Amino acid sequence: MKLTHFDDRGKARMVDVTEKAVTQRVAVATGSIVMKPETLRIIREGRAEKGDVLGVARIAGIMAAKKTADLIPMCHPLAITSVTIDFRLNTRKRCVGITATVKVAGQTGVEMEAMTAVSVAALAIYDMCKAVDKEMVITEIMLVEKQGGKSGLFRRNKTHS
Amino acid sequence: MKLTHFDDRGKARMVDVTEKAVTQRVAVATGSIVMKPETLRIIREGRAEKGDVLGVARIAGIMAAKKTADLIPMCHPLAITSVTIDFRLNTRKRCVGITATVKVAGQTGVEMEAMTAVSVAALAIYDMCKAVDKEMVITEIMLVEKQGGKSGLFRRNKTHS
Amino acid sequence: MKLTHFDDRGKARMVDVTEKAVTQRVAVATGSIVMKPETLRIIREGRAEKGDVLGVARIAGIMAAKKTADLIPMCHPLAITSVTIDFRLNTRKRCVGITATVKVAGQTGVEMEAMTAVSVAALAIYDMCKAVDKEMVITEIMLVEKQGGKSGLFRRNKTHS
Amino acid sequence: MKLTHFDDRGKARMVDVTEKAVTQRVAVATGSIVMKPETLRIIREGRAEKGDVLGVARIAGIMAAKKTADLIPMCHPLAITSVTIDFRLNTRKRCVGITATVKVAGQTGVEMEAMTAVSVAALAIYDMCKAVDKEMVITEIMLVEKQGGKSGLFRRNKTHS
Amino acid sequence: MKLTHFDDRGKARMVDVTEKAVTQRVAVATGSIVMKPETLRIIREGRAEKGDVLGVARIAGIMAAKKTADLIPMCHPLAITSVTIDFRLNTRKRCVGITATVKVAGQTGVEMEAMTAVSVAALAIYDMCKAVDKEMVITEIMLVEKQGGKSGLFRRNKTHS
Amino acid sequence: MKLTHFDDRGKARMVDVTEKAVTQRVAVATGSIVMKPETLRIIREGRAEKGDVLGVARIAGIMAAKKTADLIPMCHPLAITSVTIDFRLNTRKRCVGITATVKVAGQTGVEMEAMTAVSVAALAIYDMCKAVDKEMVITEIMLVEKQGGKSGLFRRNKTHS
Repeated sequence: MKLTHFDDRGKARMVDVTEKAVTQRVAVATGSIVMKPETLRIIREGRAEKGDVLGVARIAGIMAAKKTADLIPMCHPLAITSVTIDFRLNTRKRCVGITATVKVAGQTGVEMEAMTAVSVAALAIYDMCKAVDKEMVITEIMLVEKQGGKSGLFRRNKTHS
Repeated sequence: MKLTHFDDRGKARMVDVTEKAVTQRVAVATGSIVMKPETLRIIREGRAEKGDVLGVARIAGIMAAKKTADLIPMCHPLAITSVTIDFRLNTRKRCVGITATVKVAGQTGVEMEAMTAVSVAALAIYDMCKAVDKEMVITEIMLVEKQGGKSGLFRRNKTHS
Repeated sequence: MKLTHFDDRGKARMVDVTEKAVTQRVAVATGSIVMKPETLRIIREGRAEKGDVLGVARIAGIMAAKKTADLIPMCHPLAITSVTIDFRLNTRKRCVGITATVKVAGQTGVEMEAMTAVSVAALAIYDMCKAVDKEMVITEIMLVEKQGGKSGLFRRNKTHS
Repeated sequence: MKLTHFDDRGKARMVDVTEKAVTQRVAVATGSIVMKPETLRIIREGRAEKGDVLGVARIAGIMAAKKTADLIPMCHPLAITSVTIDFRLNTRKRCVGITATVKVAGQTGVEMEAMTAVSVAALAIYDMCKAVDKEMVITEIMLVEKQGGKSGLFRRNKTHS
Repeated sequence: MKLTHFDDRGKARMVDVTEKAVTQRVAVATGSIVMKPETLRIIREGRAEKGDVLGVARIAGIMAAKKTADLIPMCHPLAITSVTIDFRLNTRKRCVGITATVKVAGQTGVEMEAMTAVSVAALAIYDMCKAVDKEMVITEIMLVEKQGGKSGLFRRNKTHS
Repeated sequence: MKLTHFDDRGKARMVDVTEKAVTQRVAVATGSIVMKPETLRIIREGRAEKGDVLGVARIAGIMAAKKTADLIPMCHPLAITSVTIDFRLNTRKRCVGITATVKVAGQTGVEMEAMTAVSVAALAIYDMCKAVDKEMVITEIMLVEKQGGKSGLFRRNKTHS
C-alpha cells in the first residue's frame, strides 16, 4: 500500500492528473461543533436579530472551499462549480451539524474542498462564539460521499471511529 | 450574554481592539485524526523513507496559522511571532494527535491561529492518506490554553463533550 | 506638487514610513450602488427571509479591508484593529448607501482600507443582484473623514464633483 | 423575481454551474475617477517622467481581475484568458475614464472580473494621488457589455441612473 | 520584434489566449543555490535527523507553483495538473541543484510556474540556512525544456551565458 | 552549528521572536537576469514607448515583498514600512541588474523580503520577454546588506562563489 502523494523515494509531489478525463464530480463532507446549551441558544436566536452566526460561517466555508489548493500543499487547483453549506442545530447533542457539498467538472475530486469548507465554517463559528464559550469542540469532520472519476461512488458507513 | 462580533442591531463587525494594550499572548490548541491501523502504520514508517506525511502536514499547519485572518471573517490580522506544531502517534486510539502553539506580541489573542493550524494540519494528513483510507475522521479540535491579555489565563478542563 | 509614491526619477516605490510614529488612526469612506426600485425592494425584503444580500456584502467588505495591501500595489501592510460597515437603503435615490469605518494603531493611515471595503461591498451587492438587474451602477466612492497621523483631521466638504 | 445566489430558504450559495457548457465569454465594464484639474494634469504629465500613475493602476486592475473569486463571496473561480484595461483622460469632466475587458472560455461569465478590475484600478489611482487630492471620487462603475453564455448579448443603454 | 505582453501603444495586457486549443503542456526549469561546504553538509545530514531543509523547500516550491498567477502580473491563472521538484547536492560545486517539472492541460504554457517553483524553493533554502550562512547565492535559474502548444518543443542549449 | 528553523528533534518551526525588541531593520538584496543583446535593447527602448517592462517588474517585486510570509514557510509575517527596487541595464554583461531595499520596524529582519522582491522582479522580466528570448538566465541573487537587530550590520564581500 502506497501513498500517491510521494514518489518511490518518498519525495512529496503533486500527483500527475494531466491525462485524467474531465468528469463531473461531487463530494459531501460533514462535521459538527459541540457547545454549551446556552451558546446553542444564542446561535438559534441570533438568526433573527442578535447576529447571524451561521450566515457568516456559511460565507466563510464557501470562501474557504475556493482557497483549498492554497491551504493543502499537494492539492490541485480546481475551478469548482458549486458549493452549498447547510447547518442543523441539534439541541440533544448540543451541537451545530455542518454539511458541505462541492461540485466540479474537472480532472480530480473535490473531497478536500468539502472537508475544508466544513472545517473553516466550524472555525468561524468558534471565533464568533468564543467570547461566551471557549470550550466548544470541533468534531467528527469526515467525508460522507464522493461521486465521479475512475474510483466511482464512495459512501461512508454510518458506524465509525 | 452577547456575541462581541455583532453590534446592538445584530450586524457583524471586526471588534475594535485599537485601544487594547500590546501584550505577549500564547494559545495552545489540540485535535486528532482517527484512522485505520494500517494507515497509522504507513505514517509511522513513512517518516523514515516512504514519505514524510507529518513533515508536510506540519508545514501546512504553520503556513495556515499565517492565513487565519484571511480565512476567518472577523479575525484581526496579526504579526504572529512563533508557531510550533507537534504530532503524537497513538496506536491504541488509532490516531495522530496534533498540538499547535502560537505566540504574538499584539492587541488580541491567537486562539484562532492555533485552532486553524491544527485544523489544516489535520486536513493535510487527510489529503495525503485519502488514497488508502477515505474514512479517516478529524476530531476533538479545541483550545486547551490561552495566556495574556485582559482575560488572563484560560486552561481547559480535561473532561468535556 | 509631487506624488509621494514615485521617486525623483519617476520610479514607483512603497513610501518609507519606518520613522513615523505609531498613532491611532481612523478613516471613513462612503459610496453607493444605484439600482431599479424592484431590486431595492428585493434587498429590503430579503433581509427577512429571501436572502441576506447586505449581510453577505458586509462580510465581503470586512474581509476586503484585510486584503488592501494585496490589491493596491504601493499600500503598506497594516494590522487593522477595527472594521465596521453600514448600509442605508434610500428609496428616493433608488440606492444602497455604504459606509466603512476602519481603525489602526499604526505608522500610516487606513484610507485605502476604508475605500476598498466600500468598493468590494458594492461589488458583492452587484454580484448577488446581477441576475435581476445588470444595470446597477456603483458610484460616489469617496473618503469622508480621516483622523490621526501628522496631517491631522480631514473632513470632506459635502458639495463636490 | 428571485436572487439566484440564495436557495429557497434564503441561504447563500455558490450557484451550481456544473452542467453549463464551456463557451467563450466577454465582459466590458467602465468607471471613472473625478479629481481636481491639477491632479489630472499631474497624471497626464507623469506618464512621461514624473511617475506613471496609470501604468501602475493598469497592473493593479489586471492583477485584481485574477483575485475576483477571492474577493466576491459567491463568485466562481475562473481561469480567465484575457484582460485589458484602457484609460482616457477627460479634461472637461476632470476625470480618468477606465474600461476593462475580460475574456474566458468557461461555464460562467466574467462580469465581476471586469467590474473588479475597474474598481481596483480606480482605487490604485486614488492611492497614488491622495497625497495631493484627498477629494477624488470614484464613480459610475457599471457593466457595459456581456457576450456569451445562454443569456446572450447584453449592451447597456447609455442613459442611466 | 515585439513583446506580446504590451499592445501597439505599449500598454501592458494579459495576452488573449481565449481561442487557443487546450493541449497538454510541460515545462522544466532548473536553478541552484551555492553555499559554504559546511552549510551543504548540514543540509545533507539534516535529511536524516537534524531538520529536513529540502523537504520543506520542496513544499514551498510546489505551493509557489500554484501562486504563480498571483505573483507575475501578466500570467494567466492555470489549473496545473502536476508539479515535481528534485534536488541534487553537488559537493564539488558547493551547491544544491533544483529541478521543477510542471504540467497542465491548458491554453497556455507553464514556463513561469516551473521558474517560480525553482525560485521559491531556493528562497526557502536560503531562509532556513541563513542563520549559519548569509552569503549563499541563488543562481542559474533558467527554462530547460518546454513541450506542447503551437510553438512545439523547446530544449535549452547546455552552453550559455 | 544548528539551523534555527528546526528544533532539537529536527522538526520545522517558526522561530520564536516574541521577546525580541522592535528595532528598525533594513535589508538590501541584488540579482540579475542575463539575456540576448537584442532583448536588452527592447527593454531599454521599451521604456519610452513599446512597453515598460521594468515598470511592470518593479510593481511585481514590490507586491511580492508583501507576500513573502505567504511564500516562505517559516517566515514571520511583517508589516514592512518601505520597499524600493532599482534596475540597471548593463550592456557589456548583457543583463538587467536588480536591487531591492526593504525596511521594517519589527522584531525580525527583512532579508527574505528583499530576496523575494529581487526574485519576483526577475521572474516578471522573464515572463514579459520570454516570447522573444526563452534562454534568459536569472542569476546571482544574494543578500548584500542587513542592518538592525541583535546581529548588527552585515555587508557581503564582493568576491564570491
